[in-house]
Amino acid sequence: MAARRPLILISNDDGIDAPGIHALAAAMVPLGEVHVVAPLLEQSAVGHAITLRDPVRAHPWPFRGPHGKITAHAVTGTPADCVKLAIDKLLPRTPDLVVSGINQGPNAAVNVIYSGTVSAATEAAILGIDALAISYCRWVGGDFGPSAVIAQRIARQTLQRGLPPGILLNVNVPDLSLQAMKGVLITRQARSRWEEAYSERLDPFERPYYWMAGTFVNLDDGENTDLQALETGYVSVTPIQHDLTAHDWLDELGTWTLESEASTGS
Amino acid sequence: MAARRPLILISNDDGIDAPGIHALAAAMVPLGEVHVVAPLLEQSAVGHAITLRDPVRAHPWPFRGPHGKITAHAVTGTPADCVKLAIDKLLPRTPDLVVSGINQGPNAAVNVIYSGTVSAATEAAILGIDALAISYCRWVGGDFGPSAVIAQRIARQTLQRGLPPGILLNVNVPDLSLQAMKGVLITRQARSRWEEAYSERLDPFERPYYWMAGTFVNLDDGENTDLQALETGYVSVTPIQHDLTAHDWLDELGTWTLESEASTGS
Repeated sequence: MAARRPLILISNDDGIDAPGIHALAAAMVPLGEVHVVAPLLEQSAVGHAITLRDPVRAHPWPFRGPHGKITAHAVTGTPADCVKLAIDKLLPRTPDLVVSGINQGPNAAVNVIYSGTVSAATEAAILGIDALAISYCRWVGGDFGPSAVIAQRIARQTLQRGLPPGILLNVNVPDLSLQAMKGVLITRQARSRWEEAYSERLDPFERPYYWMAGTFVNLDDGENTDLQALETGYVSVTPIQHDLTAHDWLDELGTWTLESEASTGS
Repeated sequence: MAARRPLILISNDDGIDAPGIHALAAAMVPLGEVHVVAPLLEQSAVGHAITLRDPVRAHPWPFRGPHGKITAHAVTGTPADCVKLAIDKLLPRTPDLVVSGINQGPNAAVNVIYSGTVSAATEAAILGIDALAISYCRWVGGDFGPSAVIAQRIARQTLQRGLPPGILLNVNVPDLSLQAMKGVLITRQARSRWEEAYSERLDPFERPYYWMAGTFVNLDDGENTDLQALETGYVSVTPIQHDLTAHDWLDELGTWTLESEASTGS
């Protein structure tokens, strides 16, 4: 009897009708049995939000394209909700791989922490499932084809080799043809931040409101960053984990006098 | 001329009228000039969400209590929005310290990544400002007094010593009197996850919906975890950073054959 084909769950944060998720689904069909569980509406920049205080619904969704018909649900929640609900209720069994994307726009440097695309893959990693996030470094339109090819190659290798517990891969693909790409680099997140400049406006009733705007600042001139790879025409693959502990600074913090001051016990 | 008093920004995720933020404000008043910028509505489990697609408003807010009157704004956004907007538009100058809390309920182990309380402090750290998150390990009611005392002590020390760039402190206080607490431990996040068991229900029109429920599972029997500290009656202080790169696994990932397969360039 042939081995069962891998079950691959696909999600994203741009919403179930975004072009990137169709390109990704088409690229995953040759690798296994594909199910799509994605947000009904765009969920960009939701970070690792989950929906606790409200119910969510999962609508069976017509998901057709060059890939044929794929079983799909549109969920009224966040990317992390999609992965949790899919695994608990919607899938026939635990998936072998979760792939999130293909996001319209990069998710590199500090933006990883704001990214809904990455959060879907992170949630899978927390639940013990191998996962990838794939982003196409172009904000509007373009051709998802090269990103889909890269996604398929990295997904195939991930299915073959497996990832260590708790680690996922965050892949960013430059806006180039496959021929023009220089290759793939293993990278770390660049230190960076957004410097906000909120736009302050008045509504039709002359009441003020603010709209987030800002400038992205790369603070990192070191080697091997995701931004550097992308700027020089490489695919960036960053292994990501979700333990936020600053392990290197535990000993230093131990020199603070927290214990004697705070302890008033006997 | 006396040195200018430190400017301390306070935020939270339970909302500007939660009891924990009043207890925290009262504890910070002796340390500096306090401003409150907090969500108008509860924002628990929003993770590091930011509001990009909608405007936000900042309502001047009457914030009175045993601490006297404190300048405050209620923001129609997430905790990370509050910190960003406060620093760009609402505060008279860049704050010296951002303190988020006191959260009603713990933010330890994997829950750090879902926590709005922590995300406010993380956003400050990204922007280069020293920050603390403080949570009281009781889900409903109780006495925020001991947590406020701990918050004041750790905030005072943070103002004196400063934190390294990008590192914040995540503080969890057990539900005990100060006398009953055993002391303070420097900890790391415990490996853990939520095992979902969504409640599947029918609405009044017989249509299905799901509500997230689940069981928290501690997967970590190692030493020095935040959960272990709290379970044995200690305050837990975990240094947190926001670089998610799995640095220890970069070399291993380099053994994957990503380069030769993906590169089709000359």
